[in-house]
Amino acid sequence: MRVLIIGASGTLGSHIVDDLKNDFEIIQVSKSKSNIHVDITSTESIKEMYRKVGKIDAVVSAAGAAHFGLVKEITPELNDIALRSKLAGQVNLVLLGQEYVNDYGSFTLTTGILMDDPILGGASAAMANGGIRAFVKSAAIEMPRGIRINSVSPTILSESIEKYGNLFNGFEPVSGKRVATVYRKSIQGAQTGQSYEIY
Amino acid sequence: MRVLIIGASGTLGSHIVDDLKNDFEIIQVSKSKSNIHVDITSTESIKEMYRKVGKIDAVVSAAGAAHFGLVKEITPELNDIALRSKLAGQVNLVLLGQEYVNDYGSFTLTTGILMDDPILGGASAAMANGGIRAFVKSAAIEMPRGIRINSVSPTILSESIEKYGNLFNGFEPVSGKRVATVYRKSIQGAQTGQSYEIY
Repeated sequence: MRVLIIGASGTLGSHIVDDLKNDFEIIQVSKSKSNIHVDITSTESIKEMYRKVGKIDAVVSAAGAAHFGLVKEITPELNDIALRSKLAGQVNLVLLGQEYVNDYGSFTLTTGILMDDPILGGASAAMANGGIRAFVKSAAIEMPRGIRINSVSPTILSESIEKYGNLFNGFEPVSGKRVATVYRKSIQGAQTGQSYEIY
Repeated sequence: MRVLIIGASGTLGSHIVDDLKNDFEIIQVSKSKSNIHVDITSTESIKEMYRKVGKIDAVVSAAGAAHFGLVKEITPELNDIALRSKLAGQVNLVLLGQEYVNDYGSFTLTTGILMDDPILGGASAAMANGGIRAFVKSAAIEMPRGIRINSVSPTILSESIEKYGNLFNGFEPVSGKRVATVYRKSIQGAQTGQSYEIY
């Protein structure tokens, strides 16, 4: 089984790679730290990535940026970062990747706890997360050829506490290793349209 | 109390106007059928609208377009309609309108049932709806000066059955009049961060 992992060099992505690498052929893609690059805010870049990668059985996205800032300070332009990257970027991985995914393959996108359990400064990220969850639920009922689509919503990772923990006081962190197992469930299971919330 | 209603000439908007017009000073804005116009996909147009309208106590958005089409046929460009209009358009009404809303005022945005109960062709609209719901929940915890923010998610309106009913077989329609009362609850109530789901 060929598994394409986008955002493979990130904190989350590297745990997903570690979990899957012994059982699957993994194609690691990131914005700059990989042989095949992708900028998910560019449809041309996504198309080029899929042309280079070819047919796959699973697409995992652990990619997508968002601006963190208070609503009173976020401009439409800053909000566009989440719209173009975490939201449209991941949706476009599906729209432009469908034809490359083999029958009974899968897409697994990434959202996050902020859509359900907000923090100060997280509204733009929450927006992107909520958009992905709803898109996945809706797209699942019409994916062709038995292709499935799910999303994974982690809380803050233990590995990110040092960097971001001050924003997440009182949130119970979860290990990247545990979150990675949920991506495996999405890839190897039979469910579709799910939002796997790890919190 | 001054209430700005964006999308006032639409099926839903006109019911909201009817419900509120005897109790409030209503400023009706739509894309073309009003003295003050707005194109919510343009930040300049939104800014100009607020400059013309001035201080208000409540902003109601019943505006926002989305492309309906199957995931296998939606291009990133077609998906951008929902991203720019129903999602970013409504979010930008908040980001750019905060300073015009009086203390203890409110924003009420519009989503829809498709994020929870999908139909074929509705993935792009569902995405926008889910994005708005999550944004509202998150923004609510940091709105300044007692300003509240909620969203309303109607099922299909009785008044829209003739036009769109074939897409919504088995959905129980709700009257525009009943949905309008929920906007009143958002404006006159004390809740914030809510998604009022009418289904």
